[in-house]
Amino acid sequence: MKQSSETLTSLSSVNKAFIEPFPNSKKVYAKGSRDDINVPMRQIKLTDTIGDLAEKNDPIHVYDTSGPYTDPTKTISYRDGIESVRSNWIEERGDTELLDGVSSNFSIERLNNKELDELRFEHLRAPRKAMKGKNVTQMHYAKKGIITPEMEYIAIRENCLWQEYQDQIGQHQGESFGAATPKIITPEFVRDEVARGRAIIPNNINHPETEPMIVGRNFLVKINGNIGNSALGSSIDEEVGKMVWGVRWGADTIMDLSTGKNIHETREWIIRNSPVPVGTVPIYQALEKVKGVAEDLTWEIFRDTLIEQAEQGVDYFTIHAGVRLKYVPLTMNRVTGIVSRGGSIMAKWCLAHHTESFLYTHFEDICEIMKAYDVTFSLGDGLRPGSIADANDAAQYGELETLGELTKIAWKHDVQTFIEGPGHVPMHMIKDNMEKQLEECGEAPFYTLGPLTTDIAPGYDHITSAIGAAQIGWYGCAMLCYVTPKEHLGLPNQDDVKTGIITYKIAAHAADLAKGHPGAQIRDNALSKARFEFRWEDQFNLALDPDTARSFHDETLPKQAAKTAHFCSMCGPKFCSMKISQDIKGLDSATVEKIQEIQIEMDKKSEEFLDNDSEIYLKEGA
Amino acid sequence: MKQSSETLTSLSSVNKAFIEPFPNSKKVYAKGSRDDINVPMRQIKLTDTIGDLAEKNDPIHVYDTSGPYTDPTKTISYRDGIESVRSNWIEERGDTELLDGVSSNFSIERLNNKELDELRFEHLRAPRKAMKGKNVTQMHYAKKGIITPEMEYIAIRENCLWQEYQDQIGQHQGESFGAATPKIITPEFVRDEVARGRAIIPNNINHPETEPMIVGRNFLVKINGNIGNSALGSSIDEEVGKMVWGVRWGADTIMDLSTGKNIHETREWIIRNSPVPVGTVPIYQALEKVKGVAEDLTWEIFRDTLIEQAEQGVDYFTIHAGVRLKYVPLTMNRVTGIVSRGGSIMAKWCLAHHTESFLYTHFEDICEIMKAYDVTFSLGDGLRPGSIADANDAAQYGELETLGELTKIAWKHDVQTFIEGPGHVPMHMIKDNMEKQLEECGEAPFYTLGPLTTDIAPGYDHITSAIGAAQIGWYGCAMLCYVTPKEHLGLPNQDDVKTGIITYKIAAHAADLAKGHPGAQIRDNALSKARFEFRWEDQFNLALDPDTARSFHDETLPKQAAKTAHFCSMCGPKFCSMKISQDIKGLDSATVEKIQEIQIEMDKKSEEFLDNDSEIYLKEGA
Repeated sequence: MKQSSETLTSLSSVNKAFIEPFPNSKKVYAKGSRDDINVPMRQIKLTDTIGDLAEKNDPIHVYDTSGPYTDPTKTISYRDGIESVRSNWIEERGDTELLDGVSSNFSIERLNNKELDELRFEHLRAPRKAMKGKNVTQMHYAKKGIITPEMEYIAIRENCLWQEYQDQIGQHQGESFGAATPKIITPEFVRDEVARGRAIIPNNINHPETEPMIVGRNFLVKINGNIGNSALGSSIDEEVGKMVWGVRWGADTIMDLSTGKNIHETREWIIRNSPVPVGTVPIYQALEKVKGVAEDLTWEIFRDTLIEQAEQGVDYFTIHAGVRLKYVPLTMNRVTGIVSRGGSIMAKWCLAHHTESFLYTHFEDICEIMKAYDVTFSLGDGLRPGSIADANDAAQYGELETLGELTKIAWKHDVQTFIEGPGHVPMHMIKDNMEKQLEECGEAPFYTLGPLTTDIAPGYDHITSAIGAAQIGWYGCAMLCYVTPKEHLGLPNQDDVKTGIITYKIAAHAADLAKGHPGAQIRDNALSKARFEFRWEDQFNLALDPDTARSFHDETLPKQAAKTAHFCSMCGPKFCSMKISQDIKGLDSATVEKIQEIQIEMDKKSEEFLDNDSEIYLKEGA
Repeated sequence: MKQSSETLTSLSSVNKAFIEPFPNSKKVYAKGSRDDINVPMRQIKLTDTIGDLAEKNDPIHVYDTSGPYTDPTKTISYRDGIESVRSNWIEERGDTELLDGVSSNFSIERLNNKELDELRFEHLRAPRKAMKGKNVTQMHYAKKGIITPEMEYIAIRENCLWQEYQDQIGQHQGESFGAATPKIITPEFVRDEVARGRAIIPNNINHPETEPMIVGRNFLVKINGNIGNSALGSSIDEEVGKMVWGVRWGADTIMDLSTGKNIHETREWIIRNSPVPVGTVPIYQALEKVKGVAEDLTWEIFRDTLIEQAEQGVDYFTIHAGVRLKYVPLTMNRVTGIVSRGGSIMAKWCLAHHTESFLYTHFEDICEIMKAYDVTFSLGDGLRPGSIADANDAAQYGELETLGELTKIAWKHDVQTFIEGPGHVPMHMIKDNMEKQLEECGEAPFYTLGPLTTDIAPGYDHITSAIGAAQIGWYGCAMLCYVTPKEHLGLPNQDDVKTGIITYKIAAHAADLAKGHPGAQIRDNALSKARFEFRWEDQFNLALDPDTARSFHDETLPKQAAKTAHFCSMCGPKFCSMKISQDIKGLDSATVEKIQEIQIEMDKKSEEFLDNDSEIYLKEGA
């Protein structure tokens, strides 16, 4: 079981491709009401429009999940972890205390194991916990009317400085299906949404490195990237690399789904280096602790795992407490049974013991742990459909109703909660999922995996699922869990992670546009304007993936001159539709007037012509 | 201008990867009412389910666009072209005649140019044309009540032999938005849809090599793949290769958008080897004939081009007759002006001459040509939006209304017609496009490019557009024009063509599923069942792209044994959710009964528990 030390050597150096700033972009920080609220954004600088339509093009600000990694002023060292953004805020609230050491038996055991020394993160901090009787969740503060620095940070972050030019730029109104995002997000709005349970801020007090972010229907649609080793492969440095790579391209949260070697140590490295919230499925690790024998799981082992992970700083836990014994037989006639790993573990346990799931019976005990560290519930959809055939069936919807009940219990404890959703669903059945979730779960945020809209394209399930993800995001889903091209087939490598993230950024952004999220269209407009004006470099730099855009252009027109050429490879230099449009843009009013005169006359002729036609048509068609 | 002979050398041999049969698949031919109606399908053979749930799995039949290329009994030679499927049918109708030679001036000029001999397709046939006064369109026959062999062929093809097991397999009902596909497509239904103009059969009498196919809202959603050289690159053999590669992966039609060298000769090679309908945009070639100077275009040059291409066998022409002078000023304030190449050519011409487009004023003359060869109108959307900002604007919708008028004129001549659509449209504005098109154009089939649902992802526009394409396909769009990853950036290579095709097969199939197309779910169900039962090879073989699915699996678990292993790389061998589900499938009725008993008791307890909760919750939340 000993991991080779060679693995960790590569953690000493950071892959340059992971941390170089984006082209012609600058990390800027928007200041809040206090000196220690500095909200990162990526500023993309644009070149001027030249020629007849000459004008200056303002820089564009985009939401930035990459943390310190794209800031050249920061020194990055995986071995030291990243800076803590939130330590002051947590401390000054005065409702938490540093423990003498880790509380979980498993953590103690791992810590005392000398063999693990060489792969252990060096700068372990004492864990922090709520003082006795205190509740330290953002929801708890919100309900009390307290606006935390996290909430203010989020308000600034969600606005992206767009208010400065939001009104100057045309944007379609959108169709929001009941979502109601104000033109400007205020800290009070953030507080109110969190208090109502309509949004969550996944921010464990033991993960002060997070740059606060929010998940809710009235905010920008977020995406999650899954990483994690398995029994069959990967190492700590690969997983940390995937995390850094993932946030570079836009992952708003990361889930560490490790089921392989050294899960505990791997997680520590990931969290200490992650600027985004980290989620886990604790039952995966609990299962490893009982050597993979589901029926040997106990509440005590699970509880110890929750504390272990909460003290490391996991921001949200997927808990499959909705997999109740009674739903298990409902999956018997499914085409693909239970495909959720967590769901099937619990189903197996329930069947073996012929009793209710301990996650369900101990749900309030779990709430007690969650509120002591501010871990958010991600109520798992253990019975999600694994095929088009099984979509929206009794097992899935039965579980969803239970998740609704559990949401209300969690809220009673002021524990932040969001709800996981499917899965595999044909397009016409997606909306029903969203509507039922909103209704059953009191508008708690929905967090879906895809959904995949067909089963017939393994190898391309990032696409089958992006089609569904964009739609459910539009209908109101708050966070989309990415699917990589390797889904159903193998473990994603670095390229797959990037492809998954970019694909889901597309889905999330398409959803923002369709919802009419204020300011969402600014980037589209800027990129389209750059495209129209042959500002190639601006077009690349505004793209979700500037590297790929640039390299594709290079493939056909590699010369640097082509980057300033007023044509592209599609039409070539001789005739160009964009150029003609630019001529049209420059038409003088006399010409336009003349066209109108000509047209009035021609319209008259044409009407006569069409009258004749439709007469003939009616005659022949009759 | 002389093309190197080396280029054509590679046409002597066919890339093996282009023509090898799909794994565990067999080309089968379903017989029609006459000996010469043999409709190709791909039969995918499946292995048996083993273990407790042992059963035989019937082979699946899927729609097959690959023509003779995947039939190992056929000898493939690009130099000879492929077999003619329809020659008999065309001849026996007795309404056409073979001409002494080509009629277009340009064709004659090319034929007499000795320098072109070495790159000319050798076995040129005399062109066929309607006899004087005859109308040879499928719509004309349909309106007369004639069921052509093409119609019968299509009925068999659309059914895919699914009726044999359609009812045995569960399928969701779907939401069809007014489309009404019968459970079994009859030849009479095909005839009726063509007569009403609700479907088209693009089948030029000079392209007897086509395997008849249909485009219409009540049939399977189709996809088009664009190929074609440009001034900046590509050669005849590359373009023929792209076509064969495209139909292999599922292109239902191919558009040859060449604007580079030897357009005439390139097209001949493509058509003679294409088992699917070929579309073109004749104005592209007309523009080349006037050396790229749009204002020098004349009706005479355009007319000669139509005849040239009709006699080669082009099955549908994109004609931008809706770009009327009066709409041009409506594009002045757009972010991206006119992005359609054909649209901007005509806009430029209209502006230069300050008069109505000759495509509009000569529309009935064009109809006369169309009906003499049965070329289908693809009425071009020259004013489609090129950015999210410009979606659904006055220029676009004005043109669409004109296309509606022109459709009725075309129908008066019994000329088959479908309508091209956008472009760049945010999700919430897609449905309006479909509804307006159906209304304005009397339910003529819609054929859209995407639409792209955001502008911010150049390099990934196959995905931004597949999201929109799946939706508009669901709403009723009959054919989806693919977009490759190179869109906006460069010319697609072979990989891009494949990626574009597979992505659009996904969109089209997701649409079929959502519409509830009878039998569409059979392949999903078969693949999901194979997945659940760890029949890895069946899963790969049922995939849209078996090669990629297999290679992705190999990356993580390369050993052949893993292909029969009852686990996958995601969970590893120790714990597997699929395995547990298989246990659940095998539960006996006594166990299920016992679970129900236990549950009734627990439900009682749980209700008490929840009653208490909601009481507390209401108290605290109030």
